[in-house]
Amino acid sequence: MSARRGLWQLAQRAFASHAGRPGEAVPAISNAHRLAPGSSVIQVPQRLLMGPGPANADPRILAAQSLPLLGHMHPPFLKIMDEISEGLRYTLQTDSKYTLMVSGTGHAGMEAAIANLLEPGEKIIGIWGTRVADLAARYGGDVIELKADAGRSFSLEELTTALETHKPALLFLCQGESSTGVHQSLAGLGDVCKRTGTLLLVDTVCSLGGVPFFFDKWGVDCMYSGSQKCLSAPPGGAPFALSERALEKLKGRKTKPATFNLDMNLIGDYWGWFNSRSYHHTGMVSMCYALREALSIVQEEGLDNMWSRHLEMHEMLWHGLKKLGLEPFVERDADRQDPTPARTPLTRAGAGVTFCSRAPGAGVDWAAVVKNAMDKYYLEIAGGLGPTAGKVWRIGLMGYNARPQNVELVIDAFRDGLQKQGKL
Amino acid sequence: MSARRGLWQLAQRAFASHAGRPGEAVPAISNAHRLAPGSSVIQVPQRLLMGPGPANADPRILAAQSLPLLGHMHPPFLKIMDEISEGLRYTLQTDSKYTLMVSGTGHAGMEAAIANLLEPGEKIIGIWGTRVADLAARYGGDVIELKADAGRSFSLEELTTALETHKPALLFLCQGESSTGVHQSLAGLGDVCKRTGTLLLVDTVCSLGGVPFFFDKWGVDCMYSGSQKCLSAPPGGAPFALSERALEKLKGRKTKPATFNLDMNLIGDYWGWFNSRSYHHTGMVSMCYALREALSIVQEEGLDNMWSRHLEMHEMLWHGLKKLGLEPFVERDADRQDPTPARTPLTRAGAGVTFCSRAPGAGVDWAAVVKNAMDKYYLEIAGGLGPTAGKVWRIGLMGYNARPQNVELVIDAFRDGLQKQGKL
Repeated sequence: MSARRGLWQLAQRAFASHAGRPGEAVPAISNAHRLAPGSSVIQVPQRLLMGPGPANADPRILAAQSLPLLGHMHPPFLKIMDEISEGLRYTLQTDSKYTLMVSGTGHAGMEAAIANLLEPGEKIIGIWGTRVADLAARYGGDVIELKADAGRSFSLEELTTALETHKPALLFLCQGESSTGVHQSLAGLGDVCKRTGTLLLVDTVCSLGGVPFFFDKWGVDCMYSGSQKCLSAPPGGAPFALSERALEKLKGRKTKPATFNLDMNLIGDYWGWFNSRSYHHTGMVSMCYALREALSIVQEEGLDNMWSRHLEMHEMLWHGLKKLGLEPFVERDADRQDPTPARTPLTRAGAGVTFCSRAPGAGVDWAAVVKNAMDKYYLEIAGGLGPTAGKVWRIGLMGYNARPQNVELVIDAFRDGLQKQGKL
Repeated sequence: MSARRGLWQLAQRAFASHAGRPGEAVPAISNAHRLAPGSSVIQVPQRLLMGPGPANADPRILAAQSLPLLGHMHPPFLKIMDEISEGLRYTLQTDSKYTLMVSGTGHAGMEAAIANLLEPGEKIIGIWGTRVADLAARYGGDVIELKADAGRSFSLEELTTALETHKPALLFLCQGESSTGVHQSLAGLGDVCKRTGTLLLVDTVCSLGGVPFFFDKWGVDCMYSGSQKCLSAPPGGAPFALSERALEKLKGRKTKPATFNLDMNLIGDYWGWFNSRSYHHTGMVSMCYALREALSIVQEEGLDNMWSRHLEMHEMLWHGLKKLGLEPFVERDADRQDPTPARTPLTRAGAGVTFCSRAPGAGVDWAAVVKNAMDKYYLEIAGGLGPTAGKVWRIGLMGYNARPQNVELVIDAFRDGLQKQGKL
């Protein structure tokens, strides 16, 4: 340490040229914000993350993140990027050449989709509340919001009417809605969108890997997702895909996207869409290892097994909570009185996140149940968000976490939490 | 596997409701893009990354990335975010409350800075070639480019003249320029910027941790950096800071930034700048562990030792290559004939990346030297970029990699590569 300090004294004279004024001393270093010795050990307590996300990552994926770095343009790294693109083709069920991981979270994926597929002044019909409307308006979009009661999805007929009325450039749907858990059916929409000159954009952040998704067969034009839910990787990478139609739109833009960082012409080129591999940004090397490993796990398990496992765990939770007197927030197919196709419940599907609410008027303190689960079981379950705040619990059964012992623990925590309030 | 397949058959009926048409079968799953069994092991060969970046990450930082996930709003994770903010205060030498890690690479940091501090129609004076000019123009900026010959930086006098002539809203400078390695002096600029109503924005992607930087004392208003160079973490997080003046500008904007994903009002709130911690996006949990650990290492070593170490390794490389007859691309202070202050060489400083070129006309095949280094030593050195393409080698001595044995290996690889061409 003191030898180094001596070097620092000598170095100061050399560094003085940095100050732009020869001979002027480098400022003194302040230790005001330096950690005290011994206080620098990172504290990461073990938690079981059964809320809306992130879920616990598969340990195999965490281990992949500790592999040594490669250069972001090295051939072995480009091979890993190619494996991600190919793994996404299987996971999304598409033959599209245009798949990749956006360097960013699901929100970056959302912004990449809208910023690149919408030109200023064009119409977008969107559903996902104020966020997407805010985002699309910033990019100059003419935003038409479709409003639904919390927990309700749209029927093909409703969406067809909206598409034919407005003929928007972009239709934005969320397959698994994170604040209510409602599942949005996509089948049949692709044809209508083609007729009205609309690109079909789908958010699968909560749902990808947890429920069926068929990019090609459902005529989806753009999909983005997140790494941290049913794919069991840490948050940080956004799976992304475009159809040929969407790529034509991107290539034929009259204006550049306002964002340089998320310009898919440039990012696509880095990922080999156009065979030149030019540098746009430094790829997230560790995050790519993680997503590559996550997609390997999907391919090893197989989509059929993965979707079935999520469904099975969902049913197990549903039955367990039912016994405790809890009701799902989104109606279950088999139980519903209302035959309108507008209600396409998540509860038969297990789209990653599922939701329960006590029957109205029962006076359960939801927050106390959440707190008890964390304090006693180190288990995360969550309250509502936005339209469901104070009305529901949000429980995620996603990816690596969708296993029987975790479902049992969630049910135990609810039983214990309700008993403590004298509600059982 | 077959029990699961049976479940899938049963599940198909349940999933059919997803198709929006009761009774309609879910499409068949295609295995066209599924990996062949046994082919799914990730291949990460060991490389020594001594190019312009990323550098090899410190193994302690890689290990931190394999720690289990926390929720992005859990108190223990918020504590880690606070530790990052505080660690940045030390590393940047600032008392500013407004420090954080942007969820994205250095380019995301660049976009966050410009998108938030520039309103459409405002003037920005920038230096870093076509990229920043392109980016700023997308955000409606009136872009005035300052052009310098490759390898030259600007004097305080030149910048003062430009500031007084244009009175721009934003001055963009790069402390350590990655394609040439030139170091831009910052001292004295803050005062001029205050006088002309300009915010001083500095890119420290290549330089942070490698050379002196004093955010407060040099009057910097906004700084962004990258995680993958002298900080020795993987690429993916962008250290970011604002001064009080910059925050006032952000708060007083007449328009929203076009980007929602990088709106610093919203991101700052998630990081506790305004004491409410509202959800904006899902923080990159593993990447935060990594940067937190990287900043701990900076605090343990101390900035004086860290800067001295980089200088020492730089001098070692400089002397080693000199003996092989190579000349630095950017002039060395002690050697220069030209006394104009416009030339503030990197070579005395060791700002992460350093550059060498053969004396003109020597006819060395630079690419063969690079290829030999990789083939024989698994060592990355790089060629030039943009204005220096074909003219220089780029060698990085950054963070964890800035150690004597690595410098020796680089010199050995040059000796070997040059000998093979009969140039030694």
